[in-house]
Amino acid sequence: MVDLRDRSVIQKLFAETKFDAVIHFAGLKAVGESVEKPLLYYDNNVIGTITLLEVMAAHGCKNLVFSSSATVYGWPKEVPCTEESPLSAVNPYGRTKLFIEEICRDVHHSDPEWKIILLRYFNPVGAHPSGHIGEDPRGIPNNLMPFVQQVAVGRRPALTVFGNDYATKDGTGVRDYIHVVDLADGHIAALRKLSDPKIGCEVYNLGTGKGTSVLEMVNAFERASGKKIPLVMAGRRAGDAEIVYASTKKAERELNWRARYGIEEMCRDQWNWASKNPYGYGSPESNGVMK
Amino acid sequence: MVDLRDRSVIQKLFAETKFDAVIHFAGLKAVGESVEKPLLYYDNNVIGTITLLEVMAAHGCKNLVFSSSATVYGWPKEVPCTEESPLSAVNPYGRTKLFIEEICRDVHHSDPEWKIILLRYFNPVGAHPSGHIGEDPRGIPNNLMPFVQQVAVGRRPALTVFGNDYATKDGTGVRDYIHVVDLADGHIAALRKLSDPKIGCEVYNLGTGKGTSVLEMVNAFERASGKKIPLVMAGRRAGDAEIVYASTKKAERELNWRARYGIEEMCRDQWNWASKNPYGYGSPESNGVMK
Repeated sequence: MVDLRDRSVIQKLFAETKFDAVIHFAGLKAVGESVEKPLLYYDNNVIGTITLLEVMAAHGCKNLVFSSSATVYGWPKEVPCTEESPLSAVNPYGRTKLFIEEICRDVHHSDPEWKIILLRYFNPVGAHPSGHIGEDPRGIPNNLMPFVQQVAVGRRPALTVFGNDYATKDGTGVRDYIHVVDLADGHIAALRKLSDPKIGCEVYNLGTGKGTSVLEMVNAFERASGKKIPLVMAGRRAGDAEIVYASTKKAERELNWRARYGIEEMCRDQWNWASKNPYGYGSPESNGVMK
Repeated sequence: MVDLRDRSVIQKLFAETKFDAVIHFAGLKAVGESVEKPLLYYDNNVIGTITLLEVMAAHGCKNLVFSSSATVYGWPKEVPCTEESPLSAVNPYGRTKLFIEEICRDVHHSDPEWKIILLRYFNPVGAHPSGHIGEDPRGIPNNLMPFVQQVAVGRRPALTVFGNDYATKDGTGVRDYIHVVDLADGHIAALRKLSDPKIGCEVYNLGTGKGTSVLEMVNAFERASGKKIPLVMAGRRAGDAEIVYASTKKAERELNWRARYGIEEMCRDQWNWASKNPYGYGSPESNGVMK
């Protein structure tokens, strides 16, 4: 583990090894935490990235794949979101992503040797099919599937659904879930694309192009796991968008990449990870002492 | 001189002295340079500010006056610009100001103990009436008045006017010039305002509220100096707005501040500084070796 903001550590790393390209996904990502601790987010995400870019430039490594997010579409007026949709940020986390995207565009504009691909992740879920690698958030999960998983293994009594009066098929929020293995493949495709001499600073959505509601996702997880997920209906959560899903045409056309997995595989692999590791990388004892 | 980005230096400063408030104007400000060297600007301006805010918070000093800029109004669709006008950035320098404003709003929102005043400077010109303190840009001046001054003292042959076909009274661009002494007084007024218990994170324009064209400004300088300023007419400069001036009502109402000086005094004091210090803080020999 390296602290990106520690310039001397990064400089040492680049002095010791010649890197062809960097995939930078060292970002904090919890929306609520970013509202409470914005400086932590600006420090880690923004200072970290500026420092990394400076050290990369100093060492002649000007190929970057950066983990951006669909959060930069804010509350979209139209779906699917294309890479040309209007951008806005609705919380500090989103602003860190938007700021970094703009910094990357300026850096490429100032020096066309820089080749930068900004990948806008939609909603990554699932786990590696081996069941050995998965997500294990500390504290109360902010995202749907880690929460569902903790209910399924008995760590939490019920799933709270925030809002069932949205203008969607069943009233619950709609998102574009993408299997983490598809997401990983998207990074390989982006790395390949960096060798295209025509590339400058480009943006690609990484999603499936399909919108899935909270209830559809819960049902798919119940089928995959054989577990019943008790639900508690609650009001809308401030800041949540109604319906967000990707246009994936640009990534299909230019990266020659598309998601191969649907929500069945996402839930199957999420449950495989969960049932093999009900306490993630921790232990039953650690359940009660999470921050 | 302290490097704001050097956290240990700032920490030491705050450990040694209890500060009630900080006026932060340690920013790079040349638009063209920011386009060529965006990372220098993001590093100095954005990293510097995030680091300063973190150290201030850690030492319980949560009163800040920050030097923002009218650049955050981008190319305004309507003038005068009020503090509620739409914001946009049209170059990396402008983005650093916009980013920092947004970071400050997030920081106040997360912790209402923070009291922050963002001062949006219009076009500061002139010099201290003593003639001992003035602006002395290195290299070719980016701004009108330092360039005019260097023509007046014979360091440059003529002033290049970028665009005389704008939809303004005489075809040249219109700006809101403000005497640096008025600007300084605006900071004192802002510091006073920080003791108002109702203040949160507030924005104020610092301008005169009057638009002045390039030719009007040059004429005023010729009158003040008795020097003829030869002009070379050139095309519009990419990125320049046509007409920008401030609404000053909010600052008058809430800061009890208004600009006292007009363009005559600005030119008088600029010429007083220039004629006493034709080579600024340097010497005739340094004229040719400026970077």
